[in-house]
Amino acid sequence: MFLAKVVGTVWSTKKSPDLEGVRFLIVHPYDLDKEPTKNIVVVADRLGAGTGEMVICAYGKAARTAIGNQDMSIEAAVVGIVDRVDINENISDFRLPIADLKY
Amino acid sequence: MFLAKVVGTVWSTKKSPDLEGVRFLIVHPYDLDKEPTKNIVVVADRLGAGTGEMVICAYGKAARTAIGNQDMSIEAAVVGIVDRVDINENISDFRLPIADLKY
Amino acid sequence: MFLAKVVGTVWSTKKSPDLEGVRFLIVHPYDLDKEPTKNIVVVADRLGAGTGEMVICAYGKAARTAIGNQDMSIEAAVVGIVDRVDINENISDFRLPIADLKY
Amino acid sequence: MFLAKVVGTVWSTKKSPDLEGVRFLIVHPYDLDKEPTKNIVVVADRLGAGTGEMVICAYGKAARTAIGNQDMSIEAAVVGIVDRVDINENISDFRLPIADLKY
Amino acid sequence: MFLAKVVGTVWSTKKSPDLEGVRFLIVHPYDLDKEPTKNIVVVADRLGAGTGEMVICAYGKAARTAIGNQDMSIEAAVVGIVDRVDINENISDFRLPIADLKY
Repeated sequence: MFLAKVVGTVWSTKKSPDLEGVRFLIVHPYDLDKEPTKNIVVVADRLGAGTGEMVICAYGKAARTAIGNQDMSIEAAVVGIVDRVDINENISDFRLPIADLKY
Repeated sequence: MFLAKVVGTVWSTKKSPDLEGVRFLIVHPYDLDKEPTKNIVVVADRLGAGTGEMVICAYGKAARTAIGNQDMSIEAAVVGIVDRVDINENISDFRLPIADLKY
Repeated sequence: MFLAKVVGTVWSTKKSPDLEGVRFLIVHPYDLDKEPTKNIVVVADRLGAGTGEMVICAYGKAARTAIGNQDMSIEAAVVGIVDRVDINENISDFRLPIADLKY
Repeated sequence: MFLAKVVGTVWSTKKSPDLEGVRFLIVHPYDLDKEPTKNIVVVADRLGAGTGEMVICAYGKAARTAIGNQDMSIEAAVVGIVDRVDINENISDFRLPIADLKY
Repeated sequence: MFLAKVVGTVWSTKKSPDLEGVRFLIVHPYDLDKEPTKNIVVVADRLGAGTGEMVICAYGKAARTAIGNQDMSIEAAVVGIVDRVDINENISDFRLPIADLKY
């Protein structure tokens, strides 16, 4: 799953019939870079996530479970709206801790 | 799912027999960069998406649901043609909002 | 699914028993860059694709459908050999068409 | 599957109902670069992995198996806490060993 | 599927119970770059692949088929040990062969 910020909405009239009434958001996945990527993902939402909110998103069967129906043309969805994130580690320590790694 | 622009078409005569009559498009996924990537994806389509149109595409089971048959050799498909996209957030705010992140 | 060029072959004697007799190709996925990536993928093939040919490849269940058996250790396969590709859009127009995007 | 370091925790009150009581961690996948990427992934955990520990994580059905229920909105999970990693190869030898590769 | 070199081993005592007795390798996926990426993947193995050997690896259901049980928390596995790889194409020809591509 990934952490993302809700940044917009997509409207589609001509779509797979099973998607009638589904809300589609555009989200931006977070990483820890100072310069964020500009990647975007389209996710279905039935939790009512608002623009600017941080959400947890999932792909595949997990996304369809969150929307409530495995027979929908949905591949990504909001599974939770985030209250709080704690990052407890120093990012500069993110290297594989193997002393004798031969570069 | 991802937002993409329809940029072309692929024709194939010699293919998995279950794909007879399926329309294959080449789409280019959108991101928010000023310099777009040059990534392309092949998607099945039965919504009649035209070149230049913006579409929502899905992978896996969701794609086969949109085409209507789980027993086809299809892994990606158009699930909706986009009417409108609203991006409401300032892209420069796309960093993880954790004040004490130790870089 | 993705467009790729067949660039080689892989031989393996010691393998998952269900893979006996399966032909494995090395393919290189295409993008639209002037400087191509050097990414390679191993795909199963039963359409008889030859070195240098352009193919459509799929992952997951779609790949196993193309090979004809969901109980094989196959995760990627050729689903079609390409006759022709038409790209009708100017690549420089590949940015998200949102006028007021705040960078 | 991927090797990762546990770097934080995510709290969510408003979520898919099946996720009640699930613990969500933020992990950072390891690679062998001197300059690590800043990629992060959200994973479910029921092994009790602590911040700073190295874990093996999996996506999809394997993740739901580790959490114990295929009907949960979970797409990634800790499947093992790592005791030790041995890297026995010199990283500078990581090129495809084909002598006559034409660049 | 992907070609990779076995570069190490991972040991885990505290893990999903279904993984008892499974051997976990660290592999490095090959591409055709002169400067290899430093990406690593954790794969299950029951073919007995040794450090330094080249293997074919698969994700998802195909990986669990190779290990022999769909109810294990396994998402990637060795499906074959490579005897030989032939690359027959000149890497500089890896661009999409469309004459009038408008850059």
